[in-house]
Formats: sequence, C-alpha cells, structure tokens
Amino acid sequence: MTQKDTKRILLAHGGGGRLTEQLIRQIILPRLGDHGGQLKDSASLDLDSSKICFTTDSYVVNPLFFNGGDIGKLAVCGTINDLAVAGSKPVAIALSLIIETGFEIELLEKILDSAAQAAQQSNIRIVTGDTKTVETGAAEGLYINTAGVGVRVYDTECDFEKIEAGDKIIVSGTIGDHGMTIMSQREGIKFETPLVSDCASLAQLTDELLLNCPGVKFMRDPTRGGLAATLNEIAEAANLSIDINEADIPVNPTVQAAADILGFDVLNIANEGKVVIVVSADMAEQCLAICKKQKIGKNASIIGEVRRVQEQALVEMKTRIGGKRIVQMPYGRELPRIC
Amino acid sequence: MTQKDTKRILLAHGGGGRLTEQLIRQIILPRLGDHGGQLKDSASLDLDSSKICFTTDSYVVNPLFFNGGDIGKLAVCGTINDLAVAGSKPVAIALSLIIETGFEIELLEKILDSAAQAAQQSNIRIVTGDTKTVETGAAEGLYINTAGVGVRVYDTECDFEKIEAGDKIIVSGTIGDHGMTIMSQREGIKFETPLVSDCASLAQLTDELLLNCPGVKFMRDPTRGGLAATLNEIAEAANLSIDINEADIPVNPTVQAAADILGFDVLNIANEGKVVIVVSADMAEQCLAICKKQKIGKNASIIGEVRRVQEQALVEMKTRIGGKRIVQMPYGRELPRIC
Repeated sequence: MTQKDTKRILLAHGGGGRLTEQLIRQIILPRLGDHGGQLKDSASLDLDSSKICFTTDSYVVNPLFFNGGDIGKLAVCGTINDLAVAGSKPVAIALSLIIETGFEIELLEKILDSAAQAAQQSNIRIVTGDTKTVETGAAEGLYINTAGVGVRVYDTECDFEKIEAGDKIIVSGTIGDHGMTIMSQREGIKFETPLVSDCASLAQLTDELLLNCPGVKFMRDPTRGGLAATLNEIAEAANLSIDINEADIPVNPTVQAAADILGFDVLNIANEGKVVIVVSADMAEQCLAICKKQKIGKNASIIGEVRRVQEQALVEMKTRIGGKRIVQMPYGRELPRIC
Repeated sequence: MTQKDTKRILLAHGGGGRLTEQLIRQIILPRLGDHGGQLKDSASLDLDSSKICFTTDSYVVNPLFFNGGDIGKLAVCGTINDLAVAGSKPVAIALSLIIETGFEIELLEKILDSAAQAAQQSNIRIVTGDTKTVETGAAEGLYINTAGVGVRVYDTECDFEKIEAGDKIIVSGTIGDHGMTIMSQREGIKFETPLVSDCASLAQLTDELLLNCPGVKFMRDPTRGGLAATLNEIAEAANLSIDINEADIPVNPTVQAAADILGFDVLNIANEGKVVIVVSADMAEQCLAICKKQKIGKNASIIGEVRRVQEQALVEMKTRIGGKRIVQMPYGRELPRIC
C-alpha cells in the first residue's frame, strides 16, 4: 500500500460534522457495538443495583502496540480491573479517543477491535464514547480514556478499614511483566524467552473470590508504581505494617533479567493483570486455592502478612539472603508512559 | 516570580509513586474534594435509582483559558449537560488529566478550582479521577476527560422516537457564542463588545423542564457542529424534516459580526450552554415560558417546527429575505479544538 492509499485521520474527523459522523458510523460503531445506530452522547442503563462503582483512567502508553496487547486492550482491561478489585461487577465502559491528525485508520481499527474483544471476553459493553482530534504531534498517535461503571452486588465489601494484624498478603501471579515488556521494547532489548505483558481482565478471578471467599478484605491491582506502591498505600491507609518475603514473590526469570539489565527494582514495575489481596489468616489457603484454579492466578503466592505498627507503618522485605530491607513508595520516575 | 520559582509538572508526577501521591494529595484532592483522603481508583456511589445515564467527553480546547471560562469549567459543564439533556439528574463526575511535562502547577490549580466551582454550582460531586503525564509537546498543556453518571428520576423520558410532525423546535438562547469566542481569541481579533463563551451548566433548566413540561420530547446541546449538526441529527434519526426561520434564531450581534469577518456560518458554530428542545405544539408556549424564567434561557425562542418528509429528511431555513435554503450537516473542518 502506498503512502497515498493509506487512510488517515483528518482534523475534520473531530469537528462534530459529517466527517465525525462518518468516522463513528463506519469505523467505530461497527467495532464497538451499534447501539441502534444512534449517535447519542450518553447511554441509558438499567442496572441490577443502585449501588455502583465508578472509575476513570486515561491511557498514554508508548508504544501503542506491545507484546501481549495494545492500548485498546489495556484501556478496557485497566478499567475493568479498577471496578473488579473495588469489589464490583463491571457492566459498562465509556471509551473516549484523542487522535492525532495523520494517524492511520487501519491502526485505529486494530486498536478498536482489540478493545472490543477485551470487553466481550469480560462480558462488559462499551456503551458510549467520544472522539476528538488534535494536530500532528499533539497526542503521539492516540490517547484513550475509559470510564467504567460496575454494580456492587456482592456480600463481601472491600475496605482498608477491615485490614488487621495477622492478615495475609497474596499476589495473584508473577510481577513486573507489563512494565518490563514496555521498557524492553522501548529500549530495543530482546531476550531468548520473549517478554509478554500480563495485560488481562481480573473480573473473573475477583468474581470467584467475592462469591466464595468472605475472608477477602481488600484488593488492588498493582499498576503504576508496582507491588511496592500498592503495599505502601495499603500500609499507610490502614496504618499497619507489612512484612513480605522476597523468596515467595513470583517473578518471571526473563523479567528479572530485564530489570537487572535496565537497573530497575522489579517491585516498582507496573502490572496490568495482577491483583494484591489482603485476606484473613484462616481463609488465606482457600483464597490461594481459588486463585490457582484459574489460569490467570496459577502462579499466585502468599507473599507476606500484616503486622502491628511499631514506630511507623512500614513495608519490610526479608531478602533471599536473609537480610531485611524497607520497601519504599517509589519516587515515580521509573516508568513514564507505561499505561 | 522567576522562571526558577515556577513550580511545574514533572514526568514523575505521573509515575504512580511518591510524586503522584504528592500531586494528588497536595494539589488535586484539596480542590476537588477530599473523599476521606484515600487515593482509591474508583468511587462507590449509592444512587437514588438503578436507572442511570452514563457519558464521557475528552476536552482538548485551545486556548485553555478563554473569555467566560477555561478547560476545567468546560469539561465539567459539558459532561453535566450531556447527562442533563438526556433527561437525567447529573450526580457524579470522574475527572482524568493528561498533563504535559513543564506545565505550570499554578495554571493547573486555576483549572481545578474552576472545575470544582462548576461542579459545586450544579450540586454534582467529582468523585474519582486519574492523572497521567506525557513529555513536553505531547498534550499542548493539558487535556481533560470527564465521564459522568446521572440518575433517571423523571417521568418524562426523552427519545428521538417520540418526535412527530407538528412538534415545535426551541433553542434556549443565542447561538455561536462559545465557538466565536474561541476562534476570535485564537485569531487575535477584538471587538468593542467583547465576545463571551456561553459555557454553563444546563442542569437547572432541564430539571425544570422535565418536572414541569411533559410535552418535552427530545433535548440536545448543540456543541460541535452547532445548531446545524443538532437539527440534522434529529431530522435523520427521527426521519422527519425540520423547518426553521432565520429571523427567529437568537444571535448576539458581535457573534454575527465575528462569524461574518472570519467567514463562518453561525449555524455551524459550537455552543456550550444552550439546549435545543423538541416539544409538542400544545406545550411549546409553556416550555418557552419555563426557559425564559431562568437567566440561562432568557433569550429562548421558538425557531421552527417538525414536518413530514416529502422526499428526504431535510432541515430547511426560511431566510430573513424570504428565500429558502437547505441547512446541511457541516463537514466538520470549521472549528477544531473548540472543546
């Protein structure tokens, strides 16, 4: 296909007129669901409950396509996961695009197909959206915002306040896969065993946990800032300390190698298909068994426990060689544009 | 203040670590509402109904500050209006920021204050959010996405399908004010009577209409693409034609002058605080009276009516000099980055 034949986004595609309508009718709606073909600015939903969860996330990941996913899948799974770990059943997503002039429509189609597939796999509908265009260079390809609505239909409600000393900490699988995949791709580093992002929906796993494990007290997906940020947030909000064991934390050997080469602490690296669970000690093994039954949780592990604060709420890690180190909230410069 | 003293956004402010937490705790939460000081990725809401409206919009307006508002006010009012014209009571907003490295934190504060004020005035809460950073030049200052949830608590439900021949078309005030303000500011044109964006929440007006005027069949805010796009969408979706009278369409004389100078058709120009109402003929005067009682609707006018299709669903306008012209769906190139 020559340069001339490549169909590209024009500024007028975001002008709210005939071209916007064409883009929506011909490219977007056939992929994301037609909803009667009406270009409504909002969706009417009849939910199973008036108790809802509401979330939003903007995605600026660079590159847009990576091993294991792309910005479309990431945007849908990320918002599903925010709703799922909050203890709700995800039901609807609103998808908003900011597209750069000159962006190839074929790439947009791939991204939309991927978003639609991710939504379908989790049985969630993309019900409304928005499309804006900006000048070339003003969005580096495209940005996606996904907002989501979930219904709180479970008996188990997750809250920081339920956490107490003695509770166990579970992580649902290997850490650092998403972040190290993006960084290695950006730096052009290749490994014999390729790195693959863990980008996936957690809804089925959290559904099982909320239905069958009343001991679950809190869940959070360790995205930006990784396991270190999530554990520090939990410790700070609950005013409790957390002890973890390095040897119990599942890490893919290639991810560890990439982190070592690039000089990152794998604890700070983003995940996009993992959940950290705080569960009562008596139900920790049951929780672990539920995780391990699902493909997404097959590497789940009890990595530590909550304990009373001595001086200050801290996250401490017993290292492989038997020492102890404090795991701090990362500064944040590690991984820009990771999601 | 010297360049050195100006506090600016760093890439690490979007890294999900300590700096993100500081930005959220010190700059964002104090302005948008603390919500217990917890940095949750989602909000739990107990609504008055399980029937909801759900919407999203990204804002890429350039310039960020304009006469009558800024991107913060615009983002909140725009999403409130999408929920309001759909016949719901807006209750919650999720606000997501994509900020460029180097953006002045003082400007961010102004924008957040303005968003908070707009939300407060409409009695709607900003309940959750997200913050991403990108490199300098990759977002031209900042972009905002607002998603919104409203509850459908009114007896009157708006729908294209209710529209029939004989219904009247009302516009709630002068058209073109927002778009011409932005364009004049961008082009550096000044007028003796300054142009002011109409950026405002329509929720109070639509509330009155939904409670007291069962004749209201459909409402839409004529944003991008202006009155021309909205009327064409209605005609197409309802498969009916629309006749309007140029002399009855309220236009600010300075807006008309600016449109003439810059070569725009005022019918195609975006509005951010106006609503187009389709109402049954017998209740049109009552609907008009309700509009005129509110400051935001004081220039409301019956501008035309719906009629049966002869060959094709068309929007036709009787001009001031007595001719007739077809009002087409605009192409869309008129006004990029207007909202």
